[in-house]
Amino acid sequence: MTKHKLPKGFQASGIHSGVKKKRKDLSLVYSKTPCKVAALFTKNAVKAAPVLLAEEELAKDCHIHAVVINSGNANCMTGRRGLKDAGRIVSETRKLLGASKGTVLTSSTGIIGEFLPMKTILKGLPKLVKKLSRDGLDDAAQGIMTTDRFAKVSVRTFEMAGKKITISGFTKGAGMIKPDMATMLGYVMTDANVSEKALKKALFECNSSSFNAITVDGDMSTNDTVMLLANGKSGNKLILEKDKSFNTFKGNLKAVCVDLAKMIVEDGEGATKFIEVSVKGAHSKRDAKRVADAIGNSLLVKCAVLGGDPNWGRIASSAGSSGVKFDPDRMEIKLDGVTFFKVGRKAAFVDRKKSKVFKKKSVKIEVDLHAGKSEAVVYSCDISKKYITLNSYYTT
Amino acid sequence: MTKHKLPKGFQASGIHSGVKKKRKDLSLVYSKTPCKVAALFTKNAVKAAPVLLAEEELAKDCHIHAVVINSGNANCMTGRRGLKDAGRIVSETRKLLGASKGTVLTSSTGIIGEFLPMKTILKGLPKLVKKLSRDGLDDAAQGIMTTDRFAKVSVRTFEMAGKKITISGFTKGAGMIKPDMATMLGYVMTDANVSEKALKKALFECNSSSFNAITVDGDMSTNDTVMLLANGKSGNKLILEKDKSFNTFKGNLKAVCVDLAKMIVEDGEGATKFIEVSVKGAHSKRDAKRVADAIGNSLLVKCAVLGGDPNWGRIASSAGSSGVKFDPDRMEIKLDGVTFFKVGRKAAFVDRKKSKVFKKKSVKIEVDLHAGKSEAVVYSCDISKKYITLNSYYTT
Repeated sequence: MTKHKLPKGFQASGIHSGVKKKRKDLSLVYSKTPCKVAALFTKNAVKAAPVLLAEEELAKDCHIHAVVINSGNANCMTGRRGLKDAGRIVSETRKLLGASKGTVLTSSTGIIGEFLPMKTILKGLPKLVKKLSRDGLDDAAQGIMTTDRFAKVSVRTFEMAGKKITISGFTKGAGMIKPDMATMLGYVMTDANVSEKALKKALFECNSSSFNAITVDGDMSTNDTVMLLANGKSGNKLILEKDKSFNTFKGNLKAVCVDLAKMIVEDGEGATKFIEVSVKGAHSKRDAKRVADAIGNSLLVKCAVLGGDPNWGRIASSAGSSGVKFDPDRMEIKLDGVTFFKVGRKAAFVDRKKSKVFKKKSVKIEVDLHAGKSEAVVYSCDISKKYITLNSYYTT
Repeated sequence: MTKHKLPKGFQASGIHSGVKKKRKDLSLVYSKTPCKVAALFTKNAVKAAPVLLAEEELAKDCHIHAVVINSGNANCMTGRRGLKDAGRIVSETRKLLGASKGTVLTSSTGIIGEFLPMKTILKGLPKLVKKLSRDGLDDAAQGIMTTDRFAKVSVRTFEMAGKKITISGFTKGAGMIKPDMATMLGYVMTDANVSEKALKKALFECNSSSFNAITVDGDMSTNDTVMLLANGKSGNKLILEKDKSFNTFKGNLKAVCVDLAKMIVEDGEGATKFIEVSVKGAHSKRDAKRVADAIGNSLLVKCAVLGGDPNWGRIASSAGSSGVKFDPDRMEIKLDGVTFFKVGRKAAFVDRKKSKVFKKKSVKIEVDLHAGKSEAVVYSCDISKKYITLNSYYTT
């Protein structure tokens, strides 16, 4: 497999330190040139220590050199000791990198309510720093996995006024995935030269149609983090919010974020099928999103997709339960391109055994409310017995 | 098995008409003396035809004689024809009962998006009316079942100023069960003499701590209906809202509603364990309910209970995801009486293999937010692979 590329000036690594039994559990991303950063964190009232620490650091100084991430332990509900542990990881990493100025951030993912095995992690850090390389992106992506079945990396390169720009991202997902927040762990690096304001705006906007548009099980995590690091090494003219170049940059960033978000859903715990829920004709963007969320989160809809059962009544019902007002008689429901309900009546009879609806690995649910012009897309997955098995006896 | 009793003046019946293959599918409750009625319906934007019809009827005339209910077909997303079908069932039943004055209401439950098999139902109605008896409550409870494994009936009798009063209720549940609305189908009859205002107030208040306090899968139904019928046959002095007797009546009504609500959760599709989620120390009643709902609805918490895994971190996380603000460090979490988190630190280490936590048929989750004095209780159940099986290939 060819290695995924990092933007200019970035290095990365991922190793097994011993937090987890066998798989890689420690990752690092580093840029010698300090980076501007935009970040979004979980809206959960219960926030993990590394999230609290990162929020604090970013309020002071928005130029960072590195992010160090462990999997296998979320460092959440660990109180003062958890904050101290996170701080120790940051200071040790900074020392090892020789990055005396600028900030190092840390993230964690894994079981909640256990203290970090600090000896193990501190012993692993020198090795992690030593392994840093231009080819380390895939290792870093592996190091943040929990129940993920595959590493999730996406890279886009494009030109802007003769300068080649790269955006590379990696993420983890699997369980405790629900939209309406910055979700799970995701890191996107770029060598583009972007103003801080433009960087934040781009991440916020791309997030809403990528990471915030996915759901696996409706459970919001305590450690959700998305970071975008830009070191400006590509030497392009500074991108400001109002520039045309901002849209080019944002378009490519969005492509990377949507790629990563879709991978999370494809790899949802126990998932067998990918579901795209597309709602249009809503009165407002917010309405469209709420209806799409309600359908994407419905356990009964997920079960129907698993069973290849075009049970469109459940889709109507979950749309109706969203709290959004609409006229059910004007509703239109399409499953994998087949119209099942239109102008107040059933439009298709499908012999389930013979039908091809909901039979492929990727399925589509389209709802038109005929109440306005707004639309939204949500990515989801079905639920299988494996989800239950994986989560009944979870040990990290 | 001894038969459950109906209040004075009520008769009931339940038969197999042919909507379902084998099991009873048509039920009737009747009082020759007209009844005052209080009713709550689904808040789903997609409402079934019988719900729309009942809302319309109750706006005109609040004295009713009978409720006729079919299972096996929800008569929902069936447009004008669905409304006409529901109206036909009402008029035929009224004719057969000779109840020329007063209203007959109808409810349906089952698959969404199919027209009612009217020939079958109309053929069944005369038999249904003929079977009416003082002993018919259990038959009626069977006639409204869908994937329920047992019929759900609860009866309370009490005295009020020398008059014996009976409250009898029956309900169905199984899937598409979520709080925050009048949920599923439930019918409660009483011979108490109660003012219309007091009746409505009593039902509304009891509903919030019974039917609205349960969740199986977080999926709100299109047909949810709870009705309370009072024919006044016990001859007690009229109960008004401000009377002391109102509280006695309400207390007994609540006991019946909570009984029925708990039975729904115990019989949740594929459920193996009953979960009581109790939240206290919240800033407001609303906050307490939101946190309890978030925990009771969490798929990850349900999975942990199934596996007998005291994964309290998931409980903290789902509480935090509720949107309610609180200080995680002041949070207290008890599982089956064992304190797992208190004053900002882990309080118990439990060897999962040896522990008794989450091992019984009925488990308890207690959360104290230490932020105020409000509390709420929500009843839920675990989720097993059977839920997935039942709902992947659902035909009614």
